[in-house]
This record gives sequence, C-alpha cells and structure tokens, in this order.
Amino acid sequence: MKTRILSGLIMLPFLFILYFGKNVLSIACLIITLCAVYEFFNAFKKIEVRGSLPVVATSTTILYVGLILLNNWIGDNPMNLFLIATLTIFWLFISIIMSLLYLFKINDRKLEDAMVTITALVYIVFFIFHFALTDSLAVIINIPIVWLIVIASFATDIFAYFVGMTLGKHRLCPNISPKKSIEGSIGGIVGSVVCCGLFGIFFMKTMLIHCLVIGILGGVVSQLGDLTASIFKRKIGIKDYGNLIPGHGGILDRFDSVIFVSPVVFYYMFIITMF
Amino acid sequence: MKTRILSGLIMLPFLFILYFGKNVLSIACLIITLCAVYEFFNAFKKIEVRGSLPVVATSTTILYVGLILLNNWIGDNPMNLFLIATLTIFWLFISIIMSLLYLFKINDRKLEDAMVTITALVYIVFFIFHFALTDSLAVIINIPIVWLIVIASFATDIFAYFVGMTLGKHRLCPNISPKKSIEGSIGGIVGSVVCCGLFGIFFMKTMLIHCLVIGILGGVVSQLGDLTASIFKRKIGIKDYGNLIPGHGGILDRFDSVIFVSPVVFYYMFIITMF
Repeated sequence: MKTRILSGLIMLPFLFILYFGKNVLSIACLIITLCAVYEFFNAFKKIEVRGSLPVVATSTTILYVGLILLNNWIGDNPMNLFLIATLTIFWLFISIIMSLLYLFKINDRKLEDAMVTITALVYIVFFIFHFALTDSLAVIINIPIVWLIVIASFATDIFAYFVGMTLGKHRLCPNISPKKSIEGSIGGIVGSVVCCGLFGIFFMKTMLIHCLVIGILGGVVSQLGDLTASIFKRKIGIKDYGNLIPGHGGILDRFDSVIFVSPVVFYYMFIITMF
Repeated sequence: MKTRILSGLIMLPFLFILYFGKNVLSIACLIITLCAVYEFFNAFKKIEVRGSLPVVATSTTILYVGLILLNNWIGDNPMNLFLIATLTIFWLFISIIMSLLYLFKINDRKLEDAMVTITALVYIVFFIFHFALTDSLAVIINIPIVWLIVIASFATDIFAYFVGMTLGKHRLCPNISPKKSIEGSIGGIVGSVVCCGLFGIFFMKTMLIHCLVIGILGGVVSQLGDLTASIFKRKIGIKDYGNLIPGHGGILDRFDSVIFVSPVVFYYMFIITMF
C-alpha cells in the first residue's frame, strides 16, 4: 500500500512531459509504446505465441517520425489532423503487410504470431498514438485538453481503488477481476467527473460542460481498459505485465486505462471543435 | 481446367460494377467483404478459433454507410479523401474496442477469438476498403484508376498460371505453395505490366509511366497476397476457403490478390496526384 502510493510518485515526471507537449510528448509516447509492446509480447511468450518486436518497433518509429515532421511543418493548421489521419491509414497498411509477411518463414511461425503482432499494433500502438494526436489537436485549438486524458484515467483508478476499499460490497465482475466492486466503479466515475470538472473550472471555463462529459466517458472507458488488460493477463496466466514500477506492475499495467481513454478524449474533442 | 476457365466468366458481372462505380461499387465491396470474412471465420472454426461475425458485420456496414454519405455529400472535392481517412481511423478505434469487449464474456471466449476478429478487420475489411477508396479518388481526378487494381491482380494470376504451366521448372517457395514456379512468378509480373500498359495506352495516355509502375508493383504484391492466403489455409489445414465458384474456391480465394493490390494502387495514385 505504502509502496503503491510512493511508486505513484514515479509518475510525476510525466507531468513535465505533459507541460512541454509537442515533440517531447511524441517521443515519450513512442518510448512508452515500445515498452508496452515489449511487455505485451513477453507475456504472450508464456503461451508460446511470439509477436514480432522488430516489425512493431520499426512501424511505430515510422509513425512517430511522420507525426513529428507534420507537427513541425504545419502544426497549428486544422488541416494537420486530416493529414495525420491519412498518414495513419497508410502506416496501418504498411504495418499490417509487414506483420503478414512475417509469416512467410512458414515453418518457424504460427498464425497467432502474426495475429498478436497485429493486435499489438492496433490495441497498443494505434490507441496510445491518440495521446499524441490529442496534443496535436490541443495546439490547433489552443486548449490544454491532453491533461484531461491523464486526469480522467488516474482519477478513476485512484477513486475506484479507495472507494472500493472502504465501501466495496457488491462484486463488479468476479470472473474477470474478483477484487473490483460496483461501489468502487461508481466511485471511480464520480471521481473522474469531479476532477475533470475542477480542471475545467480552472483551465477551460468556456468548455466546462465538455469537461464533465469527458469525465463521465473517461470514467467508464478507463475501467473498460483496465478490465481488458485484466482479461489478457488472466487468460495468459500472469498477475502483472511487468514490475518496472514496484506496486504498480509494468508500463502496460499503469497505462491500461490511458490506452482506452486517449482515443475517446481525442475523438470527442475533435468532433466538437472541428465540425 | 475447363471448369476453371468457364467459372472465370462468373467474374464478368464485376465489370459492370467497375463501370458503374460509386455507390454500386461501394455496396459490392461491402457484400464481398462480408462474404470473405464469413469464409475466413469459417476456416478458423476448424482450429477452434471463433471470430465475431456480428462485430465485423456491424462495423463494416457502418464504415461503408459513412463512405457512401461522404461520397454523395462532397464527392469530387479532394478534401473528401482526407475526411474519409479521418472516418477510417475513428471506425478502426470503434471496431477494435468492439472486438476487445467481445472478450468480456470471459468464460466463453479465447484471446484468439478477439485476435482473429481484429485480424479480419484490418487484413480483409480495411484492405478491401481501399478498392472503394480508389474509386473515390478516381471520381476526384477523373481517371478510371480502379480498373488498374483488377487488371493487375487478374493479369498476374492468369499469366502466372499459364506461364508456370508451360515453362515452370524452378520452384518458388515449396513450403508455402508447392506448385508455384519462379518462371510463373516472373510471367505474372510481365503479364501485369503488359496489361496495365495496354490499359494506359488506351485510357490514361498522360499517365502511361505510372500504369507501368503499378503493373510492376501490382504484379509483385498480387503474388504476396496469394501466398499470404496460402499460408493461412496451409496452417489451418484447408485447401480452399470455400467453393462458391467451382474451380476457383471461395470469394477469399478469388480476391486474395485484390486485397493486397487495392491499397498499393490507392496509395500510389493518391501520393502522385495529391502532392
């Protein structure tokens, strides 16, 4: 418990990354993604499935180099986001082809090896990419929305944990994660709404209502991300993806909510500000 | 052999679809995609992996409805393609979330069930979608480029088959597809270049050089698509994905090349005409 809270402080450097944003944030996303995919593939090795780290590392690096170039080249023009979307589908095509060609060494590979590579590309790389995309959108609309991803994710985690610990009685989904309670889940959503609301009051006054909506959406989706990671771990037969951060598991254990919340915040803000 | 050629004629209705293009072509792509995914999941059932057809059918329908709406709304404006790309990444996010939530019925599902659903979404749905995207690009630049996909794919198939039959001596990749020869493979590429070149002379005179490049790229990629499908079938332990077309197997056996060639033609023509 003490370890858990102390280790939580390790996340503080991320506040600087959020503060600087732009290239710093893109590079941080690239590094976090590569660590997360490494942990993901490492876990799958336990069930004899071997994703291709070289394929994912190459393709992810190409994606972020493209993003950084576009951001520095046209940065604050709304067209930037449409160009990045186009870059993204081109990247996805190249990445999927690479994952499939990986099967051509047919005697050494299983279909699952390509399928887990593809899953990592979309579930981890593509989803986390929305964190960087949200920052690109933030530059265009000049509102610090990228913070909302972190606030919604971590507020949900923390409130769900403490409310569940003190009030938890009814189990949420015993088959997936036996310790989670309905009370904790509701506490997580309320915590997310309150924290996003407070952020709105201080930094995004004209968009307070949208901060509250993101609070609700983030509170729900954050828990879905957590449960999805739990399903993977439970099916593989491990407790944590890693032990980089004592008491918090690996990168992927820590960012399982952020992975799901990032696209939700991005598309919500993209739709309300661009159309 | 006779069946094979006669059954080839069944492909003739597709010429009308290409001729009409636009909504007709989009709807045809949607139907072909759904049949292909059905065959793909059906094959995987043989190794006890069950993809979710409802998830893919719902998400694919949403994708094409979005495409048809955008095409009819802004059709011949270049911005259309950037909007479609943005729609596509949003669609991908929603589809992946749906595939992952499919795991929440944790006792009835395996990780492979979600992974094969995700693989079908990108390898089949997303790749074939480029056929319809190429048609949207064709409307903007007013050049019938969508024909190049079909010409490159089928010319490669047919020339590789007949050249291989008559001159084939050296085996191409015995582990994946024992009957294919290096001579056939080269014959396929030459056939693709010749046919795309002829099409260029008659219908795209100012872009003849690009038709020839697409002939080469298409000739290579078409065979990679064919071999990828062979790997899936070989690993699963089936000969064909289906027997909808006698002598040609199922939809997925017939379109395995088109799946790979469509994105190549789209991105090639998109890059040279839009930038």
